[in-house]
Formats: sequence, structure tokens, C-alpha cells
Amino acid sequence: MNFRITPIKGGVCAVDGIYAGGVNAGFKKEGYDLGFIKSENGMEIAYLFTTNKFQAAPIKYVLKEEIKKTNFILANSKNANAMTGEEGINDIEEILEFLSKKTDVQNPIMSSTGVIGVRLDKEKIKKGIEKFNFNEKNSTKFARAIMTTDSFEKEAAFEIEGDFGRFKIGGVAKGAGMINPAMATMLCFITTDANIPANEMQEILREINEITFNAISVDGDTSTNDSVFLMTTKKGGYNKEAFKEALRQVMQKLALDIVKDGEGATKAVAFVVTGAKDKKEAKIVGKNLTNSLLVKTALFGEDPNWGRIASTVGASGVECDEKRLKISFENVLVYDRGNILFDEEKEKKAHEIMKRREFKIYVDLGIGDGEFTTYGCDLSYDYVKINAEYRT
Amino acid sequence: MNFRITPIKGGVCAVDGIYAGGVNAGFKKEGYDLGFIKSENGMEIAYLFTTNKFQAAPIKYVLKEEIKKTNFILANSKNANAMTGEEGINDIEEILEFLSKKTDVQNPIMSSTGVIGVRLDKEKIKKGIEKFNFNEKNSTKFARAIMTTDSFEKEAAFEIEGDFGRFKIGGVAKGAGMINPAMATMLCFITTDANIPANEMQEILREINEITFNAISVDGDTSTNDSVFLMTTKKGGYNKEAFKEALRQVMQKLALDIVKDGEGATKAVAFVVTGAKDKKEAKIVGKNLTNSLLVKTALFGEDPNWGRIASTVGASGVECDEKRLKISFENVLVYDRGNILFDEEKEKKAHEIMKRREFKIYVDLGIGDGEFTTYGCDLSYDYVKINAEYRT
Repeated sequence: MNFRITPIKGGVCAVDGIYAGGVNAGFKKEGYDLGFIKSENGMEIAYLFTTNKFQAAPIKYVLKEEIKKTNFILANSKNANAMTGEEGINDIEEILEFLSKKTDVQNPIMSSTGVIGVRLDKEKIKKGIEKFNFNEKNSTKFARAIMTTDSFEKEAAFEIEGDFGRFKIGGVAKGAGMINPAMATMLCFITTDANIPANEMQEILREINEITFNAISVDGDTSTNDSVFLMTTKKGGYNKEAFKEALRQVMQKLALDIVKDGEGATKAVAFVVTGAKDKKEAKIVGKNLTNSLLVKTALFGEDPNWGRIASTVGASGVECDEKRLKISFENVLVYDRGNILFDEEKEKKAHEIMKRREFKIYVDLGIGDGEFTTYGCDLSYDYVKINAEYRT
Repeated sequence: MNFRITPIKGGVCAVDGIYAGGVNAGFKKEGYDLGFIKSENGMEIAYLFTTNKFQAAPIKYVLKEEIKKTNFILANSKNANAMTGEEGINDIEEILEFLSKKTDVQNPIMSSTGVIGVRLDKEKIKKGIEKFNFNEKNSTKFARAIMTTDSFEKEAAFEIEGDFGRFKIGGVAKGAGMINPAMATMLCFITTDANIPANEMQEILREINEITFNAISVDGDTSTNDSVFLMTTKKGGYNKEAFKEALRQVMQKLALDIVKDGEGATKAVAFVVTGAKDKKEAKIVGKNLTNSLLVKTALFGEDPNWGRIASTVGASGVECDEKRLKISFENVLVYDRGNILFDEEKEKKAHEIMKRREFKIYVDLGIGDGEFTTYGCDLSYDYVKINAEYRT
């Protein structure tokens, strides 16, 4: 199959017939905090939600309504509408009822992110809705409206061309803390006009999510609100292989943006785990490496402390053997199947690599052919600062 | 059964016939870094070691030699002798061979803690051994010799009297980082003269360890060197119930000392989990709460962010329901089975409680009668500082 993927501008609005925007509804002192995505016609939708047992009200609402087609997403930051019980769901219903009087909506969806355990301020949201310009095509405003501790907006869009015709795909995501997606990430919205058969949509989203959002971690805390939505207008062409690759590129870009923007993070690191008994064990090792405080602080200190990496592998509970293990910082092999190669020269080289904003650490278990790559970041003073001061 | 437990001084040397001491062997710039515990006669011994698959050389040595009786423990800090392969074990054999020429030893044991992945400096250790005063009874010197990032020495001792007679028990531990014991803790040495039947020793140690060292976490990283040793001269009295209670008090005191001395920690917090499906699920929740970065940074910020606690419970994978969950900071109930009780007054009260050096957080799942209490600490700037600067 030959196809070509070209990056384009526009985020979720890169797809024809998609509108988006954001306003300040008074949750943030300044900047956007309430946004929308709207399509001219209904979009078929697939979604993945957090595995946290205390799913937030917006997620419960979508599941309760069994929404399969929608033309409208309303999203707010600063309040997660989580742990708010029945009242949280009633608040959503009241807000969406109000929205339906302002514009034409079909099965609208609400999505929230922010502090857990506080009721939504419905009046603020209603006033925000009054300010929407539904004819706007500004994906960036929407991307900003869903940011909490994020420091930059996260967007991606591609055009795909092949014998089958062409389609576009665009996405927006947010996330910087409470990031350890166990099903999806904090919030991610992907639009496309690819003519995906309804029965393939969910399966493809799940498969690509597994190697993108589910492969990242900022702090090991799985949120109550993690959601990824894939929506299609079905106006374009379609080829499964091409679509999967395009979706992977969009989700990979957005997932890596979240890691790069990890709260307080100064670097994004890929942990390439190979030679595990199977893929599942490779993923366990990779996730443990992204979540180890000692590994994360060593990354921040630019300290090639390979012993902490080895210890984390050993503590992860997978099949491993120190006589088979290999550890490298990029191309600098420091431990080779029982032999400590780490000396002053290697330490210096590895330290230089760790000064980079992005680099790879390779861990080969030498047991089987299980492979998985995870993406994490370092733990800095600023992570502590951001999270010790989040509310008070 | 009536018995009386009285705190006494002396740490491991509180037990008759036990000697201990420490010297500077040149690993630390100043202060003790090499220590010993010796008994006049052989002691029966039970031990628990880390579940990390990459067990350090000193652990492999004890397991290889199947040591059941010993009269000598040699311990060093600053180097863990881990990931050092066969050579690490050979180094121990050479050191213990040297030791046997200096004093009378029976099946001596070595124990190490510090950096992973560096060969021991045998010559330094031999020179240190030359400096030992084997007639010294100074448990505190030994406790200091095994400290790494610890800020104070950790000792406990009790005398127990009952109808069965009397016995003493004393212990020393170290640990401040890489603390998430999965079997035992970093290093802990307990001496007693209780006349414990050989077949009960291991079982009792395992049982008490489960609710003490295995209930604490500083940073969620399970070390390669975790070891707890229980040694008895068998010269005193014995009653199983009394001994278990005395051992629990010693191990609990030392475990809490480790949490209080958690790297950079400003507070020690008990997470009292009740109402879980079973004890196993209560422990999962408790461990997840001690290890959540968002909970730990909220503790540091003295922010009664109960939403992060709820989210961590939900993410832990256990059976739970937001309509049954209750969360309190000491006696301040902030969330009660679906009802958010958190208001300005409660926030102020909970914030006051969180200013304390030690306090309890109660989480009731309202599902079954599983209970478990874990002990954790906050995550401060200093944790990051200590661990980003550990080696370089």
C-alpha cells in the first residue's frame, strides 16, 4: 500500500466542516477556559475512558447516553466534575439543555479537567456559552481552553493521500500532571473525514492508544477524567493501513507533547525495552522506569546512574537475569550481561547525552522477543512546587 | 497472657552478650561507615530479603551458604555491592576470610547499602576491620555506620517480663530512600535472647514484617539490598504472644523512624484503610496512597486535597464505589458516601491538622471488613535535591 502523510495546519479544524473555539468563562483569571468543537453534520464517534473506578461525571454521562453520533463537544478546564455524584451528571444535563437553545446540537458531549471534588459553576459556564462564536475555526483557542498546568497547546494534523483517495486527520490534547493513562489520556479530541467503517473505529482507536497514550507517564497517577475521542465526518477516503498510520502519528505527537510538557519536566526520555519474555513484561518494565522516582530524579540530575535503572528492572517483578541484562544511554553501553562497562569515560559520555532535551535509554533483558517503548520525563523541583501549591 | 513491655536503652547491645561498634573506613569523609555486631556465642538467625530479582551480592552469599547460625555481622554503607556478579560474592569471601584472622567468627555475614553497580573497595574494608574494637558495646556507632542519606540513627530496645520469665529484644535499622520494602526493609538487625523455637522464628518474622516494614514507603522504589535479620542467643525466657508483641513494637518503631527520616520528608502520615473487600485490597489502597506523587506533594503543601486521595483509591484497581467511600483527615470528615462535606471551615481544620509532623488520614471503602494501615511521607524539594545530586 502506497500512501503519503503530509503535516498540515489547523488541528481539529484541519478537517472540512469542523468548527472550534474558546472563551474565558471566568475560571481562569485570564486566557481561555471553555471551548467547543462543532461539526456541520453529525460525526460518528469512538472513545476510550480512564480505568479509574471513580470516573468523572462527564464520562458517566457519555456512557449512560450511549452516544454513537454527535456534532458538539463542550469542554472546560479548572474543574474536573469528578466525585460529584448524581448532581455532577444533573449539572451536565442542565448545561447541555441550555446549550441546545443557543445552537443546533445533536447528542452533545461535555468534557472536563481540573480539580476533583468541586461542583461545576453552571452559571459561569452558561455565560461562557453565550460568548461562543459558533462560526469560528480556531483549534488553538480550543486547545488553550482545555489547558490546566500545561505550558503550551498540543495540536497535530495530517493530510493522507493514496490510491484510495484522500482524508485528513487532526487532534488536540491536554495534559501535564496526573498523567499515567491506563486507557486513554487526560483529554484528547481527534477529528477526521476518513470514511472508517463503524465496526473498525473502536478497535483501531484501542490498538493505537495502547502504543501512544498508554505508553506515557508523567507522575504515575491515573486521572478520573482521562478521555480520548475519535470523531469522523466520513466525507473523505479510507484505507485501514493508511488510517492507522495517520492516527498513530497524530496520537504519538500529542502523547509526546504531554510528556515534554510534564509538570516541571526538563527532558523527555524514551525507554526502549527489548528482549523481555513478552510484550506485556516489556511494558511493565517500561512503565516502572517512567514511574521510578529515583530514575526520574537521576534524569533531572543528568546523572547516568544505571544502577537505579537496573534496580527498577529487578523490582518490577518480570523475568530477568543480571547475566543477560544490557543497559545503554543512546549508543553508550554501560552494563553488558554481567559486566560493568561504566568507567570515567563512559560516565562522561552518558552525562553529555543526558544534558539533551530528548534522548533514549535502551534496556535489553535478553530473555525473549517482547518489546515496548515508553515515554517519561524527569522529576524536578518545579514538579513539587506546582503540585504542592496547586489548590492553596 | 499477662506480660509487661518496658523500653530500655542499648539497641542491639541491650541483649546480654552482644557487642557492636563502628569505625570510619574511608567511604564517608567523616563519621562511621563500617560496623559490626558480634555475640559471645552463636546466634540462631532468621532473615527476609528483598523481592527485587537483582538481589545484591551479600544476600546471594547468605542464601548460598544457607546460614542458620552466626556470631558476626559486618556491615558497610556507601556501596551496595549490587549488580556486581560473581566478583561481588568473591569480594565478600575474601573480606570474611581476612576478618576470620582478626577475631573468632562462626559463619559471618556481610551486609551492604549504598550505590548500586560499583565493586567494593576491599582494601578500605580490611583497613577498617583492623580498627574495630571487638569488646565495644555501642549499638549507636553501628547504627551510624550503616546510615546513607539517613539523618538520624534508628534504634529500639525493650525488656519483656511475664509468668514465663523475661527476655530482651533490641534492633537497629537504616533507610531513608529507595524505600518500598516488598519483603523487608533496607537493612534491619534485631537481637534477642528470647528462647524462640527454631521452627517459629521465620514464621514470626514474616508475620510481623508484613504489618511493619512492608507497610511503609518513602518513594516506591524497592531496593536490591533490603534485608532484615532476627538473631537470638536463646538465653532468656519465651512466650510466643509476648515475643510477637515485642517484635512488633521494635519493628514498628524502626519502620516509622525510616518514614520520619524519609529523604527530604517533613511529615510522616499513616493511611488507615478500612472497609476494603479484604486485607489484600486494603493494603493495595494504602500502598498506592503512600506512593502517589500527587498525594505526597499535597502533603508537603499541607493542602487537604481529598480529591487526589479519592482519585488514587479509584485508580488502584480495587473494588470501590464513590457512594460508599469516606475520607477524613484525623477526625475531620470531608467526603461521606457521595456527599462532599468539604467547605471552608473543614478545609481550615484539615489544613491545621496537616501542619503537624505526624497525623492520620482515614479512608473507609465501605465494602467489606479488610483493614490495613500504611505509613508514608511527603515529597519535598529536598527529595529531588538529595536524589538528583546523589552520585555526581
